[in-house]
Amino acid sequence: MAGELTVSIDAMGGDAGPSIVISALVRSLQRHPEVKFILHGDETVLHELIAKRKGRFSTNVSVRHAPTRVAMDEKPSYALRRRRDSSMWHAIESVKTGEAEAVVSAGNTGALMAMGMYNLGLVDGISRPAIASVWPTQRGQTVVLDCGANIECDAEQLVDFAVMGEAFARAVLGLPRPKVGLLNVGSEDMKGHDAVRGAAAILREAKLPMEFVGFIEGNHIAEGVVDVAVTDGFTGNVTLKTVEGTAKLISFYLRSALKRSFLSRLGAVLASGALLALKRKLDPRAAGGGLMLGLNGIVVKSHGGSDALGFAYAIDTAIDMAVGGVNKSIAADRAGVVPEAALP
Amino acid sequence: MAGELTVSIDAMGGDAGPSIVISALVRSLQRHPEVKFILHGDETVLHELIAKRKGRFSTNVSVRHAPTRVAMDEKPSYALRRRRDSSMWHAIESVKTGEAEAVVSAGNTGALMAMGMYNLGLVDGISRPAIASVWPTQRGQTVVLDCGANIECDAEQLVDFAVMGEAFARAVLGLPRPKVGLLNVGSEDMKGHDAVRGAAAILREAKLPMEFVGFIEGNHIAEGVVDVAVTDGFTGNVTLKTVEGTAKLISFYLRSALKRSFLSRLGAVLASGALLALKRKLDPRAAGGGLMLGLNGIVVKSHGGSDALGFAYAIDTAIDMAVGGVNKSIAADRAGVVPEAALP
Repeated sequence: MAGELTVSIDAMGGDAGPSIVISALVRSLQRHPEVKFILHGDETVLHELIAKRKGRFSTNVSVRHAPTRVAMDEKPSYALRRRRDSSMWHAIESVKTGEAEAVVSAGNTGALMAMGMYNLGLVDGISRPAIASVWPTQRGQTVVLDCGANIECDAEQLVDFAVMGEAFARAVLGLPRPKVGLLNVGSEDMKGHDAVRGAAAILREAKLPMEFVGFIEGNHIAEGVVDVAVTDGFTGNVTLKTVEGTAKLISFYLRSALKRSFLSRLGAVLASGALLALKRKLDPRAAGGGLMLGLNGIVVKSHGGSDALGFAYAIDTAIDMAVGGVNKSIAADRAGVVPEAALP
Repeated sequence: MAGELTVSIDAMGGDAGPSIVISALVRSLQRHPEVKFILHGDETVLHELIAKRKGRFSTNVSVRHAPTRVAMDEKPSYALRRRRDSSMWHAIESVKTGEAEAVVSAGNTGALMAMGMYNLGLVDGISRPAIASVWPTQRGQTVVLDCGANIECDAEQLVDFAVMGEAFARAVLGLPRPKVGLLNVGSEDMKGHDAVRGAAAILREAKLPMEFVGFIEGNHIAEGVVDVAVTDGFTGNVTLKTVEGTAKLISFYLRSALKRSFLSRLGAVLASGALLALKRKLDPRAAGGGLMLGLNGIVVKSHGGSDALGFAYAIDTAIDMAVGGVNKSIAADRAGVVPEAALP
């Protein structure tokens, strides 16, 4: 289905290093036997890790040497100037030159975004890229963006995000006409600041392959009221991290509560299958990574920096985005939106 | 301990009406036998509800007639103009005239804030009031503000919130030197927009009875890294509601998971004590309501609009705030802060 698809991998990103990347590839090569992979990184290390592997590793995986790597705590501006021989830079360059359709990295998020913007530029009509994240809800999944690429956003940028989220939901989640909402402090038209009200005015008039439901409140995300929840990167980032903290807190409470007595411990053993299912449901690795939407090339940041399964999910998402043609949809849909100044 | 304390109650606020208020009072009169209560509302209805009650209801509770009430969906501006004969208005007026120290209402949040500001004004040195909420964390509790009173905030307003949160944590949570953090997209000094960076600059130099820990990220709230987490009302409101939605979603997953098989159902029965303890821990009613800090009078909005226990917790919080002298602390602490323009 994916034809001649090639995915470029920053094999040295993340805290855990290349061994989890190789473990992730075992799974990806099974699930996507038609996809080719280019691994960028220290060739000695990578060849050694691959030497033990067989099967499609010899036919579908190639290694490209990159002498350095971007550290997790390097400033994006520093990485952009000084890390042009890094595995991350080379991995992105493979997309720029056209030999790969998508890049996956578990490395420094800010550096990945900066190098992505510098090398790939933006999809036509988009003024700023955004980081999107897919959250579980009571009805399925919701795409939330921006999760931190843009600290302050005007109305047109929020419209960019709505279009990018809608295109992703159509291409990857398979929803023909996704429901899109703007996060606000209330659902009435007069609520919020100029940027959200301006974006709502534009989106209400726009002819887009989505159902714009207007303003939504925070609780509507988990309730599954929308498929795409749009907000500025400050609110999105704080909310995303607070929710991750809350999920951990509840697990912590649940574990302590279940350890309280003999009966509760016995109950926990009997219900262990159910509790494991719950744990899987809340596993942030299953979200498929942080999607850098709006870049003129597919860039996915793996959340699972220390974990092969998380990296494999991020590869799945990158492949789905390439096959689904997300960026073509974004460009086509954004072109049809009438700007606020030209509204009747 | 509370001496001659009187609490004014809007007995007609909330969806559930006055019967839950009377049930809440049964608990409050037991816990606070020294406190007097003034109930504002429909006197026929209230006298009828109280007629069956005995004990301190006859000595500590008085009823004041108010012919109308504020509806839950009325606009604050409308309520402020047209509802001056309502139970909410009269309840706030009891604080304005000095016959009560605090007011508790389960009614319309926006109207309560508007009437509170109009009638009580602000604590000296505070430019905007804020809604604070107390969240459970891995280490105890954290005060989060603003949760929605102010959509856009500058640096000085964020400083107001930090002072109000710190004073609340000292007076009510009993922490002599609370840890205060500013929510941001990262903990490095250069992160965020002008308002958070400006507020951090002011707070770093301020001599306040708190430990200013600088920028924090969303996950730090649940981890209990700070006692007070400060943010603008847009971010705070979206985050608060998203977290409430997430907690409900996880309960929903847990319930469905535990129903999956005979064994998991049996396990759930055995662990039911532990699961109930978890439920209590996550109960938003236990948070003691939404605190309207910065008003020159104590105003608490009960979350438990439909529930006596939630209302009783809100009364507890109002009493703690009055006894602890929150507003005196706010005024004294704010006066000592050097404005950004005057920083060295």
